[in-house]
Amino acid sequence: MAELREKLLTMAAHAERAVALAVQALVNRDEKLARQVRESDNILDQFEVELDELCVTLLALKAPLASDLRLITMAMKISQNLERVGDEATKIAKRALDLLNEAPLKPLVDIPRLAALATEMLRQALDAFVRRDAQLARQIITRDAEVDALNKHVHGELVGFMMGDPNTITRCLNLMVVSKSLERIADHATNVAEDIVFLLEGRDIRHTVKHSRILPSPGDNNKT
Amino acid sequence: MAELREKLLTMAAHAERAVALAVQALVNRDEKLARQVRESDNILDQFEVELDELCVTLLALKAPLASDLRLITMAMKISQNLERVGDEATKIAKRALDLLNEAPLKPLVDIPRLAALATEMLRQALDAFVRRDAQLARQIITRDAEVDALNKHVHGELVGFMMGDPNTITRCLNLMVVSKSLERIADHATNVAEDIVFLLEGRDIRHTVKHSRILPSPGDNNKT
Repeated sequence: MAELREKLLTMAAHAERAVALAVQALVNRDEKLARQVRESDNILDQFEVELDELCVTLLALKAPLASDLRLITMAMKISQNLERVGDEATKIAKRALDLLNEAPLKPLVDIPRLAALATEMLRQALDAFVRRDAQLARQIITRDAEVDALNKHVHGELVGFMMGDPNTITRCLNLMVVSKSLERIADHATNVAEDIVFLLEGRDIRHTVKHSRILPSPGDNNKT
Repeated sequence: MAELREKLLTMAAHAERAVALAVQALVNRDEKLARQVRESDNILDQFEVELDELCVTLLALKAPLASDLRLITMAMKISQNLERVGDEATKIAKRALDLLNEAPLKPLVDIPRLAALATEMLRQALDAFVRRDAQLARQIITRDAEVDALNKHVHGELVGFMMGDPNTITRCLNLMVVSKSLERIADHATNVAEDIVFLLEGRDIRHTVKHSRILPSPGDNNKT
């Protein structure tokens, strides 16, 4: 169990670092660093495989109960989220490389802010896990809206650029993907935080709404 | 265990149907249907919560070994993928509603094709699970490249429209998101197929590459 905790922490630290380096490469137009991030995605893939194997082994050998069982099943979910953070970092690095083909559109201000927010959320999720702090985990979840709003703002600004000058379209599309990736990283941090709350409180806060129907019935009245 | 299988199958059928209806709403400019899909996302959220609970209960009560243990742990991963398919269907429905605010850009041909491919992959993943057919699961994985290529083609065509006429920009951005969502649905089908291969063959084919480093070392030579 100690090995599992340790591995998750190391994986989270790697994921956070990959995101920070990808954005650093983007902002500084650092080709070498962007290539290094792009090529290092598989370290998180490998972590996920190893963590899953470890979890299956622990489940098979120990038949753990209660809190250990919860830790193991949630560890598998958390590792999947961290692996996807790595995918997003790779995506950002690729876009940073694409953007080197053209002159800078403008100094990047909001994207580094977005990155700082998203990586801070990841780091806090990690802290909440280490300190078994459900309150901190809950705070992370509330910050997701801030990130969503900033991503929307960036998106709107980029649409303005595109409308004003079609020559900026490819650059704007690349930056939109980066902004969306950072928003998605914050979503993954939020997922991890929700898993931690579940781990600590045994309460599932992920989806608290009620069932609804997917299939329209014949005489159905529309709500709106 | 039978309940677990049953629930996963029902969840998968819902996910596939949500995608098909969202794309139908988009193509037919059907506002009512788009709203229904958008509002029914929580059914898949709820399935995920219930499946996780069922898995934790099974692990706690039965302390299952070998193939059952594998089924349970993979069921949790599969349900997470299906829940995300539901998220993508919701996203498509929202974009379909946005697109109703403007005249149609052009008749949609490639997007329905992309949707047909992605939902077929999901359906096959389900079949592979029911029939415990690792070979079919492997076939699904190879089809992912086809979807990626079609998404790239759609993206390129839309960039052409945007360049030609800035008035099409918001419509093109909406359609790009739809195309990307469908590509991501195919990714989720691929993830499920990989989980099935792991379930049947006990072999992890998700990430087969070797470790690499994330942190640049001082005297590092760049590969390129």
